[in-house]
Amino acid sequence: EAASSSPSSVNSKMEQLLLPPIGDRSVRLHMLAAPVNPADMNMIQGSYPVLCPLPAVGGNEGVAEVIEVGSDVTSLRPGDWVMPIDAGFGTWRTGAVCEEDELISVPKDISLLGAATIFVNPCTAYRMLHDFQTLTPGCTVIQNASNSAVGQAVIQIAAALGLKTINIIRDRPNCAELIDELQSLGADYVVTEEEVMSTGLHRVFEEVPKPKLGLNCVGGLSGGIVFSNLDYGGTMVTYGGMAKRPLQIPAKSFIFHNVTLKGFWLTQWKRKHKEDKAQLKAMLNAVCDLMRGGQLSAPHCVQTPFHQYTHALQATVQSHSRKHVLIM
Amino acid sequence: EAASSSPSSVNSKMEQLLLPPIGDRSVRLHMLAAPVNPADMNMIQGSYPVLCPLPAVGGNEGVAEVIEVGSDVTSLRPGDWVMPIDAGFGTWRTGAVCEEDELISVPKDISLLGAATIFVNPCTAYRMLHDFQTLTPGCTVIQNASNSAVGQAVIQIAAALGLKTINIIRDRPNCAELIDELQSLGADYVVTEEEVMSTGLHRVFEEVPKPKLGLNCVGGLSGGIVFSNLDYGGTMVTYGGMAKRPLQIPAKSFIFHNVTLKGFWLTQWKRKHKEDKAQLKAMLNAVCDLMRGGQLSAPHCVQTPFHQYTHALQATVQSHSRKHVLIM
Repeated sequence: EAASSSPSSVNSKMEQLLLPPIGDRSVRLHMLAAPVNPADMNMIQGSYPVLCPLPAVGGNEGVAEVIEVGSDVTSLRPGDWVMPIDAGFGTWRTGAVCEEDELISVPKDISLLGAATIFVNPCTAYRMLHDFQTLTPGCTVIQNASNSAVGQAVIQIAAALGLKTINIIRDRPNCAELIDELQSLGADYVVTEEEVMSTGLHRVFEEVPKPKLGLNCVGGLSGGIVFSNLDYGGTMVTYGGMAKRPLQIPAKSFIFHNVTLKGFWLTQWKRKHKEDKAQLKAMLNAVCDLMRGGQLSAPHCVQTPFHQYTHALQATVQSHSRKHVLIM
Repeated sequence: EAASSSPSSVNSKMEQLLLPPIGDRSVRLHMLAAPVNPADMNMIQGSYPVLCPLPAVGGNEGVAEVIEVGSDVTSLRPGDWVMPIDAGFGTWRTGAVCEEDELISVPKDISLLGAATIFVNPCTAYRMLHDFQTLTPGCTVIQNASNSAVGQAVIQIAAALGLKTINIIRDRPNCAELIDELQSLGADYVVTEEEVMSTGLHRVFEEVPKPKLGLNCVGGLSGGIVFSNLDYGGTMVTYGGMAKRPLQIPAKSFIFHNVTLKGFWLTQWKRKHKEDKAQLKAMLNAVCDLMRGGQLSAPHCVQTPFHQYTHALQATVQSHSRKHVLIM
């Protein structure tokens, strides 16, 4: 069974597909759980730079159990938990047959929800905290969209690394509650965009150094808050554009403040490291260690039975609230 | 005699100052020639991040002859040509006494105008072509403000390196003439902003690869033309903001096109390498070699006798045309 979606909106249906027989180097899987990420919806809408030939099975992330392996498969055994490496796999399905090379295993001693959602958001947070600036304990990181799944992972991984975080959120009715929640994850400072615009971050910078690294998932004014508070020579990494407004960067930020602006897209990073599974494994091991140690919790998810997938898709398109995870 | 300027506008006067006696490690100079660069005017207006205690002597670049050296000076002899390394020296003067360490020598077999103007614009072009991307012959560079002093140096140094240049200019009445002039310097393509906006650069990209490096001195729409035509993974370096409008960068340029945005400020580069004169000398030697070989010409300058300096300052504030060089 697989949920295929049409680009017009959330027009999708569940269909019975015949699985091909497994070859010497291929593997038969039973999907266990697969989240509905916002980027999955962008892909269905055709606005994502990974497009699959239609009709296609939706979903890019998830955890499966290995049911059967071909005679030449060496790295996987029945019962293992695995995840597809590449985007475009189509994880909203109950079964699949694919090549051993397309998969990477994940330890079974983390939670099912943790395993189902580890490979997009926590890994994005992990890479951004490691690949752009040399950060040592006591260094500061500033980010917006701090309540997103990546934002929450950034807070927790940064805290585990001994980094200080300044977390920008949009003003909202339940602000105090959200601030409490993010602080309980390890956020050092949680401030609303409005606060930063009116009073700045002077008070914060009396206590911690200016950030060498900024993480931007919003763009527009909110991205401006991130880069304009960077330390001299700092780097801002853009990994999303939720506000659908461009960043506006004055020349002096580059020339006199020596700011560097870069982007990060985990799908591209995975493609680049596809042949070199050691790097993928090292990242997964590090993130799993944080999960086992209680330093990184799985996101608060809504678990949705697979046959109710339309509800999960609609909820994801309509709001940025809780992540839905389909349970097969 | 020194020309000091007040911040209000081009309110300046020439004054007689007494030179201090020279110490064991200091040097007495006679200034020969000093340009009026736009950044000098920004400094006088107070909008530059290098501010001198007032009253101050204007001018940040120029060539001087060594007249007398202290007993412990080893690297310089009377008759040598020298330039101040740091911004803020005040080169609009006839004489100066300073430390040996503040100076770097320049060969006397290049033209006086070449020596007077080598250390800001051609060196900026040289560094930007060397420090941000690994460029091999056949690679493409795109820039705006192509008719500026830096722009012309970029065209010539790039041509000497075997690089292809795409040079954006503003539309203007004498466009054909300017295109001829830049092509005679070695520009491969010269296109107006309007042309790029209406028809793009498809024709150009049938002949040369997309640029790995973009150089932006304008900002706003013109900066947008530069970064949006970069190759995947390319870098745009901002070194000016002539349009006084911010760059507007959509998130997808960072995420899916992997563009990096950085800034360059030669004053900062020089500060960083002040202790390590080998790097400064290597750069000057390379640029002087290009001048001697006829691959890099001194900019078309208006030579102004020092006592007519007010005319040169006013002309620089009022227009971006020919560079004025004060001759002492």
